[in-house]
Amino acid sequence: MSKEELVTKIRQKQSFLCIGLDPDVSKIPEHLRGAADPIFEFNKAIIDATHPYCIAYKPNTAFYECLGADGWKSLEKTINYIPKDCLIIADAKRGDIGNTSMHYAKTFFETLSCDAVTVAPYMGSDSVKPFLNFPGKWVILLALTSNEGSRDFQQLKGEHRRLFEEVIVKSQEWGTTDNLMYVIGATRSEDIAFARKLAPEHFFLVPGVGAQGGSLDEVIRFGSNAHCGLIVNSARAIIYASQGHDFAEAAKKEALHIQGQMALYIQRHNW
Amino acid sequence: MSKEELVTKIRQKQSFLCIGLDPDVSKIPEHLRGAADPIFEFNKAIIDATHPYCIAYKPNTAFYECLGADGWKSLEKTINYIPKDCLIIADAKRGDIGNTSMHYAKTFFETLSCDAVTVAPYMGSDSVKPFLNFPGKWVILLALTSNEGSRDFQQLKGEHRRLFEEVIVKSQEWGTTDNLMYVIGATRSEDIAFARKLAPEHFFLVPGVGAQGGSLDEVIRFGSNAHCGLIVNSARAIIYASQGHDFAEAAKKEALHIQGQMALYIQRHNW
Repeated sequence: MSKEELVTKIRQKQSFLCIGLDPDVSKIPEHLRGAADPIFEFNKAIIDATHPYCIAYKPNTAFYECLGADGWKSLEKTINYIPKDCLIIADAKRGDIGNTSMHYAKTFFETLSCDAVTVAPYMGSDSVKPFLNFPGKWVILLALTSNEGSRDFQQLKGEHRRLFEEVIVKSQEWGTTDNLMYVIGATRSEDIAFARKLAPEHFFLVPGVGAQGGSLDEVIRFGSNAHCGLIVNSARAIIYASQGHDFAEAAKKEALHIQGQMALYIQRHNW
Repeated sequence: MSKEELVTKIRQKQSFLCIGLDPDVSKIPEHLRGAADPIFEFNKAIIDATHPYCIAYKPNTAFYECLGADGWKSLEKTINYIPKDCLIIADAKRGDIGNTSMHYAKTFFETLSCDAVTVAPYMGSDSVKPFLNFPGKWVILLALTSNEGSRDFQQLKGEHRRLFEEVIVKSQEWGTTDNLMYVIGATRSEDIAFARKLAPEHFFLVPGVGAQGGSLDEVIRFGSNAHCGLIVNSARAIIYASQGHDFAEAAKKEALHIQGQMALYIQRHNW
């Protein structure tokens, strides 16, 4: 999916919501646990209920890998089930030396047909570039994450700027606004503004709204650009809105609620 | 495996060699490609031929994941096949917010019974700590990698020290010499010496000797400590020593050659 198509999608669906598919076996409704593939059954019901209200789904590989090869089958089935009008983001946070990153890129862009993959920047250029060589596919590079530990290294002050700022500046030598986005956590407004200044035209994937305490209003105020430029992720607040038989209906209600808020901003800003 | 057991193992086997199991389907011998599970057959033959000469095996997950669920089965089978007297390192370079890292830790320490996993530090404390809560298991934290891109961020100068040094200093607040090692690339001797100064008692996993140009002699001169303190990885030079029918025999010869060199250092230093 190109940047232009993504912008059009946001306008069409009046949404820039991404739903995190992080199905924790201990948290999915009890009545699903006896199914042949409870993880897929859960995801399928969530996708059926919510796809009109979001533009992307983001399965995090940890929740599938922990179930071994069976988990990878559930991941494959989930990815194949996601409607084509939604961006599929593998939240994998991979990154390794060049030849190895190439194998990870093939994993997510070819073996699994994802549209985007989150990549960790620590190992630098040759760990990121192999992911950028797939036409129509996206790297979403970790810049500023929403967790407490983001202070340990991402905020370290270098000679010119902080590490997360350096990641944003340096990586623009490797990718373009058409194949590179950034993960920018929703938890510190002034840092979202800094990131936006350094990358005015790139899309940001924003976790941390909702369960992690970030505010949609602040994210938009400090992080949006002329074409919206945001994909805001919500996982737990939607997929675990209820843990009973009505989990899909409750997820739909929550997704619809967030989409409704987003539509107001899209109209107000004429995105 | 405890640190003490590891030190004993090095003495017993007169080796601190780790063999990287990175089986690239396009590089494994042609006569294996028709097997039901070529990746496992390849690994099995390599392990059978080399296990007396190494103390660890390090499968890199990228080479398995790119084959989907089947690749994960090959990984599982490989891990289960590795003899118990060898440390099993999942080279996975994972790291995510706390709850997600916990799922990754379960993946590698419980679903797969690995002894150690490589972890990326970019997301900080809560992305690393969940891996440290498994008795007898190890985190091998990326500090200074051996690839070209390691210059982009790892070498960035902060107020007090460079990023890779900061990672080594900060992470010692989270783990001990009994559950935390560091990845220290073999490509710049003066940096190996810096790392050793900052972490005198920790084990280092050293990639980059051989195919990537690092020298065993320099690694030992600048990186060893009183108990050796090194696990030196070699992958391509061993597993692709020959691509013919004699691949396992050639791998054995190469592993034996490196082990022979290592034995001389172990004796000379009285490790």
